[in-house]
Amino acid sequence: MKYAACLLNLLLLIPYQTMAAEKTQQLLSKSNGISYPVGWQNWSTISVSQRTDNNTLRLIVGNAIAVKAARAGRTNPWPENSIIGKVVWKDEQLSTWPTATKPGKLIHAEFMFKESNKFVETYGWGWARWVGKQQRPFNNGMQQCITCHTPVKENDWVFTEPASLP
Amino acid sequence: MKYAACLLNLLLLIPYQTMAAEKTQQLLSKSNGISYPVGWQNWSTISVSQRTDNNTLRLIVGNAIAVKAARAGRTNPWPENSIIGKVVWKDEQLSTWPTATKPGKLIHAEFMFKESNKFVETYGWGWARWVGKQQRPFNNGMQQCITCHTPVKENDWVFTEPASLP
Repeated sequence: MKYAACLLNLLLLIPYQTMAAEKTQQLLSKSNGISYPVGWQNWSTISVSQRTDNNTLRLIVGNAIAVKAARAGRTNPWPENSIIGKVVWKDEQLSTWPTATKPGKLIHAEFMFKESNKFVETYGWGWARWVGKQQRPFNNGMQQCITCHTPVKENDWVFTEPASLP
Repeated sequence: MKYAACLLNLLLLIPYQTMAAEKTQQLLSKSNGISYPVGWQNWSTISVSQRTDNNTLRLIVGNAIAVKAARAGRTNPWPENSIIGKVVWKDEQLSTWPTATKPGKLIHAEFMFKESNKFVETYGWGWARWVGKQQRPFNNGMQQCITCHTPVKENDWVFTEPASLP
């Protein structure tokens, strides 16, 4: 069924899309020397999160390697070539259900790329971020990301705990 | 790239998976007369949400038709054969970042199936829900779903507002 569903996605998505958005994203500048992970908008979900300290909603997605590992509970360490993406929006009140929030303004999409041999000096991960709807690359270096993630260095530097799925 | 990414997913996912989980889900009983939408765990995201009235985190996914419509802003009405899924977890504090929440216990996964000719009496949608990690089918009828969704009947009966994506 995964095969059928994916095939259906291929059949449905390809003939109709202009590819314009993806072509634009291929042209985005690198962040911390890392190329933009084109197509992440269609990756499967690993988890979701909300933060009350800055009022944001978060979606955590992964490439096929990362999703497979998350679903199998094999995330410490995450396998080589995993890519984990965290998409962050300001949360906004849902007008039709006032005690609910929805994603408002897009803050950034940030990614961790697991390539232990390539990113030896940054704990096996490449750290990158593209800011705002225009996806302006963050280029202030990986140390800022690493500093924030230091509390979870024993979790292979990842905050995300995969959601329970049936 | 969508083609390549999907093809990569096929290559990576198929040889390794046992298909056991999906086979089990194909055997799940119908909810309100509707078959289980096997494979939804790998669908792309339409939005996320949080509710403070019952402390839940929500992920809203869609089949390829629904995701394409959401990304294009064509959601009133949603196109025929759209399936929208909402996955609901109790939220829990993230121990490594106390002002953040993560998905805790899985409450249910609920789905709306847009088939106007089939679901004439329920406003063009089939309404179904499977409860808990075991995905026990809800069979108390569609009216309970419709009653709750009545405030958004002008939005084609859908609360979800698609997230802004780059």
